[in-house]
Amino acid sequence: MPASPIRKLVPYADAAKKKGVKVYHLNIGQPDIETPKSVLDAVRHSDFTILEYSHSAGNESYRKKLVQYYEQVGVNVNHNQIIVTTGGSEAILFAFMACLDAGDEIIIPEPFYANYNGFAVEAGVKVVPITASIENGFALPAISEFEKAITPRTKAIIICNPNNPTGYLYSKEEMEVLKEIITRHNLYLFSDEAYREFCYTGKHFSAMQLEGVDDNVVLVDTISKRYSACGGRIGAFVTRNNGLIQAAMKFAQARLSPPSFAQIAGEAAVDLPADYFNATKALYQSRRDLLVKRLNAIPGVFCPNPGGAFYAMAKLPIDDADKFCQWLLEDFDFNKQTVMLAPATGFYGTSGLGKQEVRLAYVLKESDINSAMDCLENALKQYPGITN
Amino acid sequence: MPASPIRKLVPYADAAKKKGVKVYHLNIGQPDIETPKSVLDAVRHSDFTILEYSHSAGNESYRKKLVQYYEQVGVNVNHNQIIVTTGGSEAILFAFMACLDAGDEIIIPEPFYANYNGFAVEAGVKVVPITASIENGFALPAISEFEKAITPRTKAIIICNPNNPTGYLYSKEEMEVLKEIITRHNLYLFSDEAYREFCYTGKHFSAMQLEGVDDNVVLVDTISKRYSACGGRIGAFVTRNNGLIQAAMKFAQARLSPPSFAQIAGEAAVDLPADYFNATKALYQSRRDLLVKRLNAIPGVFCPNPGGAFYAMAKLPIDDADKFCQWLLEDFDFNKQTVMLAPATGFYGTSGLGKQEVRLAYVLKESDINSAMDCLENALKQYPGITN
Repeated sequence: MPASPIRKLVPYADAAKKKGVKVYHLNIGQPDIETPKSVLDAVRHSDFTILEYSHSAGNESYRKKLVQYYEQVGVNVNHNQIIVTTGGSEAILFAFMACLDAGDEIIIPEPFYANYNGFAVEAGVKVVPITASIENGFALPAISEFEKAITPRTKAIIICNPNNPTGYLYSKEEMEVLKEIITRHNLYLFSDEAYREFCYTGKHFSAMQLEGVDDNVVLVDTISKRYSACGGRIGAFVTRNNGLIQAAMKFAQARLSPPSFAQIAGEAAVDLPADYFNATKALYQSRRDLLVKRLNAIPGVFCPNPGGAFYAMAKLPIDDADKFCQWLLEDFDFNKQTVMLAPATGFYGTSGLGKQEVRLAYVLKESDINSAMDCLENALKQYPGITN
Repeated sequence: MPASPIRKLVPYADAAKKKGVKVYHLNIGQPDIETPKSVLDAVRHSDFTILEYSHSAGNESYRKKLVQYYEQVGVNVNHNQIIVTTGGSEAILFAFMACLDAGDEIIIPEPFYANYNGFAVEAGVKVVPITASIENGFALPAISEFEKAITPRTKAIIICNPNNPTGYLYSKEEMEVLKEIITRHNLYLFSDEAYREFCYTGKHFSAMQLEGVDDNVVLVDTISKRYSACGGRIGAFVTRNNGLIQAAMKFAQARLSPPSFAQIAGEAAVDLPADYFNATKALYQSRRDLLVKRLNAIPGVFCPNPGGAFYAMAKLPIDDADKFCQWLLEDFDFNKQTVMLAPATGFYGTSGLGKQEVRLAYVLKESDINSAMDCLENALKQYPGITN
C-alpha cells in the first residue's frame, strides 16, 4: 500500500511550522473558499432528535435532489441509479470492487490521482498506466497506446475530467475516442468528475452524456470540491447499469450508510442559486492565470495551461521532486516562509516518471500564491540538486 | 459479496408498509433512544466557515478527547494510537486490510456480525468460523476448537464483545483464553467493543486490558450505539502496535479523512455526565427482560438470556428463518401489524446453520416489543412451515 504523495510530507511541514516558518500549502486540494452558508446552515438548523443510519444508498430525498442537480448539468438519471457514498473515495472503491475481480487490470492515463493506486491495492486490481505527456499539456494518449495496453484481464479505464493532477479538460472528441475503446473491448469507463464545474477553456462533457454505453459508464462524483465541502465526505456512485447498482449496493450495505449530517448539506447545496459557480470559477481562473504566469517566468520551469480543476503540473529544473519538496520544508525558507508542493512521482504508475514534476493546487488567495511563487523562485536558486 | 441479512428484506418491509401494515423493526440495531442533545448541539452550534478535510487520523482534539474516554473505561492509550474511522465498519476494514494479505484466514466464532463477511470479501480474506451454540448461550467455543481451525494461513481472530448478534458477554477468563491462543500462534486479536457500555450480567473486560499482547490487539470501536449516533459514521481503530498504526494510516490517507461534522459530535459525547449510560442501560435491560420472557413463553421458542448489547438470538420452531422472515412481511399480519426479524443464517459462516434462528434487536419501547411479540406469537400459529 503506497503512502499518499499529498500527505506523506505532512510531518516535515509540521516541523517547519514549529520552527516558526510559514508554509504555503499548494500540496493539497483543500479549497480555501468558504462553504456556502446555506449549506452549513441546513445542518445547523436541522431538528432531528436521533442521528440515525440513513438508507445504505443515501436518503431518498437527497438522491431525488441529486437527480435535479444532474439534470442541470445535462445528465439524465433517476434516483435509483445513484448511491450516495462516503466521499468520492468510496465511490471509486465501489467501482473497483463491484466491476473488477482480484487480478483484473484497469488502465489509467498517468499522471493520475494517486489514491487510485490505494483503491487498486485494496481491490487487488492491477493498475496499467499509459503515459500522457507534459509537453502536450497531458492530452489523452493516442488510441494506439490504449490498444497496446489492453489484455484479456483489462476490465476498465478510469479518467478524471477535468483532471487531477494535471488540470487537463478532456474534449468531447476525446470522450468519443474513449467510447470507441470501451465499446470495442467491452470495458467499463469510470469517470471521476469531481471538478465538473471548474472548466476554463471549454465546456465539460460528461461520460454520462456518451450515447449507447449506459451499461459501461460509471460516474464517480463528490461534493467536496464543488461546494468546498471536503470534510462532509459525501460523494456518489452513478450508473444506468442496473446490475452494477445491485452489486455496488452490497458494498454499500456492508458499511451501512453514508454520513447523515453531510447528506443534509449536500441536499441543500443543490438549491444554491444558478450563478453560484460563476464567482468561484472566476476566482480559480484568475488564480490559475497568475500561477501559470509566475511559474513560466521562472527560468527552467514549464507549466502547461490547465483547462480545468484547480491544479497545475509544472516541470522544474531539479534532480528529484521528492527530495526537493522535502528540502523546501526541512532546509529552506525565504523570509521565514516556504511552500509545500506535491511531488509528481506519486501520480505516476510508471516508476521513474515525474521526477522533475510537481503538482500545485491553486487553492490560496492571489497574494499567497505570489508569496509562494517568491519562495519557489528563490528555492530554485539555492537548491543543491538543480539540473540546469 | 453477500447481501446484508439485516437489510436484504427491506423491500418486503417497504411493500408491507405500502399495504398499510405497521412493521415493528426488530431486525436492525438502530437505537430508538435520542442522541444526547449536547452531542447534536455541538454540531449545530459549530461556527467554522469551511467544511475542511480533517487529519486522516481524525482531529487531534478529538483523538485527545478519546484518550480521556478510554481512560474512563480502563483502557490506557495515547492519541497516536488512535485512528478515527468512518464508523466501526471502516475500523474493521482497516484491521482486515492492514493485518491480513489476500488468502490469509481469520477465525470468527459464529454466529457473528454479518458484515465481517463483506469486509473479508473486500480484503480477499477467508473467514474460518468456529461454532458457538445457542444451547449454552453462545459462550466462547472451547480452545480445542480454535486449535483445530488454525492453519499456517491463520493471521487473526475477531470477536465482538458484548456480542452482536448473540448478546453474549465474554468473561475475563474467556478473554485470557483468547490471549493464550493469540500468544501461542502469534495472531492478531481484533476486538469489536461497540456495545461496551451495555453489559447486564457482569463487568466488561476489554481486549486492550490483556497484558503482554500490545502488538497483537486491535480495538475496533464506534460511537454509533454508545450515543445513539449511528448516522454520524464515526468509529476508531485503536492499537498500541506502532507499525500497525503506520500501515493503517496508509488506508486512512487513501480515503482522505473521516467525516468532520460527526467528529465534533463524538468529541462532545466524551463530556457527557458519568451517569449518562445508567439510564440507557437500565432501559435496555428492562427491554431485554421483557423480550426474553415473552420469547420463552411462546411454545417451541428458546432464547438464552443475553449478557450485553441489545440483541437476542432465538430458536424458533420453523423450517427456514429466511422464508419465515419474508413470510412475516409478505403474507402475514396481525391486526394490520407485523414484525421484521433478521434471519440468523446470514450470521453463520457455516452453510446450513441458523436455519431455525433469528436475531432480535430490542431497540423499541416496551409497548412495541409487546406488540411485536404478539405478532410473532400469532405468526407461529399460522406459519405453514412450523416444525413442531
